[in-house]
Amino acid sequence: LESADGGFSLALSGQGQFRYIYNQRSNAPGTGIDDGDNLAGFQLRRMKLKGKGHIADPKVSYSFSLASNRDSNNTGLESFTLGYKFDNGVALKAGRFKAPFAFDELTSSSRQQAVERSLVNEQFTTGHTEGIQVEFKPVDDLKVKAMFSDGANAGEGGNGDFNETPADLAVTVRGDYTIGGSKGFAKDYTSWVEDEMGINIGAAVHHEVAKTGVNQATGTLDAFTRLTVDALYNNAGLSLFGAVYFETQDAVTGGVESDPFGLLAQAGYTIDDTWEPFVRYEFIDTDVAGADEINVITAGVNYYLKKHSAKFTVDGVFALDPLTGISVSDGLGLQPDAPGEDGQFALRAQFQLLF
Amino acid sequence: LESADGGFSLALSGQGQFRYIYNQRSNAPGTGIDDGDNLAGFQLRRMKLKGKGHIADPKVSYSFSLASNRDSNNTGLESFTLGYKFDNGVALKAGRFKAPFAFDELTSSSRQQAVERSLVNEQFTTGHTEGIQVEFKPVDDLKVKAMFSDGANAGEGGNGDFNETPADLAVTVRGDYTIGGSKGFAKDYTSWVEDEMGINIGAAVHHEVAKTGVNQATGTLDAFTRLTVDALYNNAGLSLFGAVYFETQDAVTGGVESDPFGLLAQAGYTIDDTWEPFVRYEFIDTDVAGADEINVITAGVNYYLKKHSAKFTVDGVFALDPLTGISVSDGLGLQPDAPGEDGQFALRAQFQLLF
Amino acid sequence: LESADGGFSLALSGQGQFRYIYNQRSNAPGTGIDDGDNLAGFQLRRMKLKGKGHIADPKVSYSFSLASNRDSNNTGLESFTLGYKFDNGVALKAGRFKAPFAFDELTSSSRQQAVERSLVNEQFTTGHTEGIQVEFKPVDDLKVKAMFSDGANAGEGGNGDFNETPADLAVTVRGDYTIGGSKGFAKDYTSWVEDEMGINIGAAVHHEVAKTGVNQATGTLDAFTRLTVDALYNNAGLSLFGAVYFETQDAVTGGVESDPFGLLAQAGYTIDDTWEPFVRYEFIDTDVAGADEINVITAGVNYYLKKHSAKFTVDGVFALDPLTGISVSDGLGLQPDAPGEDGQFALRAQFQLLF
Repeated sequence: LESADGGFSLALSGQGQFRYIYNQRSNAPGTGIDDGDNLAGFQLRRMKLKGKGHIADPKVSYSFSLASNRDSNNTGLESFTLGYKFDNGVALKAGRFKAPFAFDELTSSSRQQAVERSLVNEQFTTGHTEGIQVEFKPVDDLKVKAMFSDGANAGEGGNGDFNETPADLAVTVRGDYTIGGSKGFAKDYTSWVEDEMGINIGAAVHHEVAKTGVNQATGTLDAFTRLTVDALYNNAGLSLFGAVYFETQDAVTGGVESDPFGLLAQAGYTIDDTWEPFVRYEFIDTDVAGADEINVITAGVNYYLKKHSAKFTVDGVFALDPLTGISVSDGLGLQPDAPGEDGQFALRAQFQLLF
Repeated sequence: LESADGGFSLALSGQGQFRYIYNQRSNAPGTGIDDGDNLAGFQLRRMKLKGKGHIADPKVSYSFSLASNRDSNNTGLESFTLGYKFDNGVALKAGRFKAPFAFDELTSSSRQQAVERSLVNEQFTTGHTEGIQVEFKPVDDLKVKAMFSDGANAGEGGNGDFNETPADLAVTVRGDYTIGGSKGFAKDYTSWVEDEMGINIGAAVHHEVAKTGVNQATGTLDAFTRLTVDALYNNAGLSLFGAVYFETQDAVTGGVESDPFGLLAQAGYTIDDTWEPFVRYEFIDTDVAGADEINVITAGVNYYLKKHSAKFTVDGVFALDPLTGISVSDGLGLQPDAPGEDGQFALRAQFQLLF
Repeated sequence: LESADGGFSLALSGQGQFRYIYNQRSNAPGTGIDDGDNLAGFQLRRMKLKGKGHIADPKVSYSFSLASNRDSNNTGLESFTLGYKFDNGVALKAGRFKAPFAFDELTSSSRQQAVERSLVNEQFTTGHTEGIQVEFKPVDDLKVKAMFSDGANAGEGGNGDFNETPADLAVTVRGDYTIGGSKGFAKDYTSWVEDEMGINIGAAVHHEVAKTGVNQATGTLDAFTRLTVDALYNNAGLSLFGAVYFETQDAVTGGVESDPFGLLAQAGYTIDDTWEPFVRYEFIDTDVAGADEINVITAGVNYYLKKHSAKFTVDGVFALDPLTGISVSDGLGLQPDAPGEDGQFALRAQFQLLF
């Protein structure tokens, strides 16, 4: 879609994800509630309209994504970026977008292997924020992104204004080193049959200094640092992935610090670029008093009509421990547990269309 | 608007409805409020942006509609559908869309005869929900749609998530039998001068089992069933329509059941495809204790500049009885009455543009 | 983007404004809060998607603007217009749009000289409302717009419905008389180097009768009238602008009336159509008991990559007096002061892209 002016461009695209979810929770003992806390229903998980283009000089680019809320139906501006690319390959990006931290978060929701991202990602992700990023390649095969931002998840809605940022200062740096592989193989987990052997090794750090002094309202932390290291292996249909996450906190005087730790391992195998069985294991130690360590296993299969553009996915999530001490989104098909419960199971069936 | 890929398509369109409304209510006796409770103002009733297209194979289609709220201005995802058409004509549709129940609701807001749908429709409609529909033709001229969904109005915003659905199970089935008529004549009420004689007879049932056990929160019903039967007659400018509605409820233990009944009759005549006077009669027996039976007469005229794409409509709504015991939306230009009031009158003038 | 139909047209465009804002307030004496109430952060101030076109006959036109909220991310329908142009040049416009009052408000946010409109404009603007406008030229070089509407700011969200309008009646009339000047020079403040000498003299009045009788809820005014007079001078890079604002109020019985007054003066000079230093002075006498008169100075510079389509702006706002007795939006990078404070300073850096 080229505009009349000639110097501008605008390309529109979209994403839809429609799901059926069945969630079975055990009930808390002692609440007097009998068995049968099972909930099921349809969910229009994502519907996004995206645009991108350049103005006059292709060096100056922009992109946006409008996303609709699965519950309220409200449409919000998920991301908006302004980009400038220098002749030496250095790229600047400003606006609202994801801080360069966790691989699972940075992999588009449209290119996931499972129906939804991992629970461990929800715990450690820095989400969308607002700020400025510089991207460069110090050596071939190594890409480095560094972002100065308003803090983790500061662009997720509700605290977007300059005077409502959670942090006085936040810096996120991620490096990705690539060995071999087909072009862009690390944009998803999946290895297609025709893909060459490729390895992507990533490491990232996010450091955030919370608001201090008179501006510190309800927060309980002075600062925190998150670390992640991950590796992806792709080869002719086989994909292996592993990641570790760690956070260390600096509480306000008298506050409680916790140092959560997480683990993610994932494997899939593509048959004829059509069927892809996969399995995922997650571990979260929330380091919150009274909360169990959490083990989650997800297993399922993709049926690709046209790679990620039209695919059907079914998986089952087995939370072996009660989901307490962490934030649990029904966007994952999961629900919070009360302490002492037995864990839960979710069956998720999804059709995705990219247009 | 064909995308660069070649295998995708995206067509954009839109709808705008701008109104001036004057509403005159009598006041409740005994409230101490004097005469003069008249309210008037402009209303941007609807502004929708719509898209539709197919991907790769025209068998795989999608559509979406973004609609802005007349009060808050917020834009929400009104509908999103994923479709698949088999070679034998059977069509699957999944996503958020209207359950196949009332003719008045299924007729697009852009193709109504009056400024707005009927009040009786608001009472019995199943609205937008989320689910899966199958459409097929058991015999020529008979089209059947069956939908499994999250329950009536479960896609209208605020309860879209899988664990917030009003129903454990909801099924809606509608059949439409056509005798003669110009192609697509039953997409609106209006008969154009060049139209051949056509009759559309429809019948639909919606059955919903509310959430039970520990998941039943504030609801007062265990289940309910709605029925409707309608007939449309079109012939060279003359249009006649009639519909009946009935609901039977199964309350929770100790709850109150009501079995409301409704009636809709509508007639219009198109002169030169330019002017179209019309009249509509509605009757609602809410079966709610203390609420009157409701009789409403609407009369008005359309002036078509370019059929429904550019039209001007003026009508008057005469509510002969107080509007109590039902939900009354100001989207219709009406307002709730207190028991004992005298009914109300609304004058509505609208310009509509489709683009 | 011409639609398949041939008789319709739709052109899409957009606007993005991304800012970094540093705000320094003095603290209220006696509150026990120590020094250091400084807040800084990024702000995605505006992201708008706009569409416009005509249907069948170019005489019938429409336009819309979807704008995202800088804080909640929610996208709303900022404006929607339906237009009709008669052969004699008289133009009708209906829908949600800005009432023709203050020059600063009517100048697009994409064409401002400073990072943001003035504070005095926020005080006196009539904002977006809903209604009908007629535009005509009684003599050459004089353009008159008259609008009947639901009242000042009645289209800004939250009171858009017909029965929630703030006014029983509102009329806004503005005249603009042009002497010389390049075509469309008064669409912005900036004078480009190639521009001929041009003067635009404007005057406007807005009169609003608040809801009366039983419909008057929390309002304290029976009616108010606002006046503004402004003049713009453009000549080969030099731009000068001045405006005065005045309001007179008619309070309900026992209510408090205030007659606020405001002043705006602005000057800029374009060097090589690339750099444009500018300075702005504002004065507001809120006429509210206990509130100081407010003096604000803004100074900064534009760097144009492609006129307003791609520009970088930095300015500083020096509020010499505490911002009390008025509504202060963080959209301006400013924050409310408590009485007795010392005023505040805001540094604002913005990149804007139009696409």
